[in-house]
Amino acid sequence: MPTIVIAPNAFKGSLSSTQAATRIAAGLRRAGIHAHFHLIPLADGGDGTLESFLAGGGRRVKVDTVDPLGRPCTADYGLLDGDRTAVIEMALASGLALLKPAEVTPENALRASTEGTGILLQSALDSGARRIIVGLGGSATSDGGMGCLRALGVQFWDREGSPIPPGGDGLNQLAHLDLSGVDARWRGVEIVVASDVTNPALGEQGAARIFSPQKGADPNAVAQLEAGLNRYFLILHQQLGVDVGSIPGGGAAGAFAAGLMAFLGASIRSGVDLILDQHHFEDHLKDSILVITGEGRIDGQTLEGKGPIGLARRAALQGVQTVALVGGLGIDDQRLHEAGIRVVIPVVDRPMSLQAALDQADELIERAALRLGYCLLLGQSFPPGAI
Amino acid sequence: MPTIVIAPNAFKGSLSSTQAATRIAAGLRRAGIHAHFHLIPLADGGDGTLESFLAGGGRRVKVDTVDPLGRPCTADYGLLDGDRTAVIEMALASGLALLKPAEVTPENALRASTEGTGILLQSALDSGARRIIVGLGGSATSDGGMGCLRALGVQFWDREGSPIPPGGDGLNQLAHLDLSGVDARWRGVEIVVASDVTNPALGEQGAARIFSPQKGADPNAVAQLEAGLNRYFLILHQQLGVDVGSIPGGGAAGAFAAGLMAFLGASIRSGVDLILDQHHFEDHLKDSILVITGEGRIDGQTLEGKGPIGLARRAALQGVQTVALVGGLGIDDQRLHEAGIRVVIPVVDRPMSLQAALDQADELIERAALRLGYCLLLGQSFPPGAI
Repeated sequence: MPTIVIAPNAFKGSLSSTQAATRIAAGLRRAGIHAHFHLIPLADGGDGTLESFLAGGGRRVKVDTVDPLGRPCTADYGLLDGDRTAVIEMALASGLALLKPAEVTPENALRASTEGTGILLQSALDSGARRIIVGLGGSATSDGGMGCLRALGVQFWDREGSPIPPGGDGLNQLAHLDLSGVDARWRGVEIVVASDVTNPALGEQGAARIFSPQKGADPNAVAQLEAGLNRYFLILHQQLGVDVGSIPGGGAAGAFAAGLMAFLGASIRSGVDLILDQHHFEDHLKDSILVITGEGRIDGQTLEGKGPIGLARRAALQGVQTVALVGGLGIDDQRLHEAGIRVVIPVVDRPMSLQAALDQADELIERAALRLGYCLLLGQSFPPGAI
Repeated sequence: MPTIVIAPNAFKGSLSSTQAATRIAAGLRRAGIHAHFHLIPLADGGDGTLESFLAGGGRRVKVDTVDPLGRPCTADYGLLDGDRTAVIEMALASGLALLKPAEVTPENALRASTEGTGILLQSALDSGARRIIVGLGGSATSDGGMGCLRALGVQFWDREGSPIPPGGDGLNQLAHLDLSGVDARWRGVEIVVASDVTNPALGEQGAARIFSPQKGADPNAVAQLEAGLNRYFLILHQQLGVDVGSIPGGGAAGAFAAGLMAFLGASIRSGVDLILDQHHFEDHLKDSILVITGEGRIDGQTLEGKGPIGLARRAALQGVQTVALVGGLGIDDQRLHEAGIRVVIPVVDRPMSLQAALDQADELIERAALRLGYCLLLGQSFPPGAI
């Protein structure tokens, strides 16, 4: 029996990637497709990242930590089977979803801190991890990772030699860094940032201007955050000799990515690629006849190589074709076909509002998979070369 | 090279069946499907019926006639190649689309007449037709075909021996029929009504109650029309010995169908079946690998056998499978699959309003066909039995 790999992203606002994968398998089974379905729920570094990695094997560790405003909370990270790799989904400690809607204010955008994620990192180190994947996305913070790095022992002083306040605004008082308190074991740990963001830390397309408004920042707060991050990366450059302010991707999670690059030598990779690696995607492709992915929306940006196109390329290298189920399609099917996604099946089955589509996404996705299954079986019934 | 028969209905409010068929062929061609595409645009007796029949071969005849309100106009009917069959689309002379919106009033609902269609029938007879297909649908009339039959020589008298007024309301004054002026040649002519309507002429589900409100009738006018039709079919029963008031389908086009049954021995068949016959559907299936139909909407009612299901059954008898492209789906795909439509491809590709779907129906339909083509080719690439 051949394998069909089912590797969808989450359908944001409706189904997690695990739920989507389950529904796709159910639809194909209902169509009468006889195959082994291997499920690889994907994530981009944000919501669902820990769950996606753990689906490949591993265990959760619960840690007492703090939320973006410094309040005590608990959060899980993951220890993966086999190779001393830990996975941290930063949004679980420092995410916007941890704030109440009324707490998403300019004041909190200025003071939100990644300290809680730092506590998770320290715990992962203490548990023996030699490689830590940090999923970025959905953050409440714009502090360049300062809170996290302080939790790991970096000291951030102002001109008077006092610790600067937490949050991106605190960076405006930064005068001097002291790394002497950082645990020496960090030198032997590989840090990999899982993120699909391409924005740099600073400037017009930077973290403050592009992302902080979603976190409550008004124009004044945006300007303060941009000034703080500029000062932070300038001092980093002067003291550590690393210039990360304009590196593509460094802007992820309020420039957290750039901070991890500067202090811990982190590299950035797409969440999807990291998860596919963890799930031994290429090994599974050897027995596979098809890969089915899924995505809330596919449009012209998708052609830039993120997400489903990257997945399809990896599958194509092993000679396996890829099909995508999609909530909304904003590009001609032929362009995707030529880019490696052989067929796109939209899940909507009639004119309907976005809200209606989100409300019944589970059924729509299962039925789109049913339709795909019927269509593949019909095509298979034609003699080779008949059409 | 195998044949794919493309036999869609119109997508009402957007594309004619001819336009839809052309777009479906374009999408399949763009997907790289190598087949001969045989196009059979379908119609249900209403809008597009003449065009659909003529697509199988024939010519148009233009006739000076009258519109539903008795005003002079011209309308075409068709003489089909080969067998002395004429096709009349009644809406071209007696259709609601011939009235301005402001003319769709209770008064006009009461007086609208099928006389213009009668003039077309007489012309078809004079041109030598031995079989006349009368497509019903989209009518402005509720006169039981009285206007048409008067144009063919039937006299409709009131109690004083004067001709009754035109329209369904005129039937309230009917006292006596006189068939002596009817052309004897009608005895040798077969009349076939093309209609998918199952409503009878009279009663709760009858022509007046169900259809006349769309033609401008208010509750008073509905009651007058129902009374007039009751009187009409009672007198018909008394004088001709035929009782057609409750026959299923007799209610089509303001009970025009029942009038044609009573006076001219008309039979009723579905427009789709008649068009498929005219296009020698079964002959084409011999070389065909697939039938693709299309429909604006498919839902639970579709399972009752109208339209696409009927088409699929005819194809299945010849061992050919049927796929449907659909504007809106209101039923689980599996139920349609089990009823003989192997795959349904919705044409919408993202959440959108009905109006947006109608506005871009041409592109959506072509791309749905493109998607179907890709999917069939992908399925064909799997070894037999692989999935």
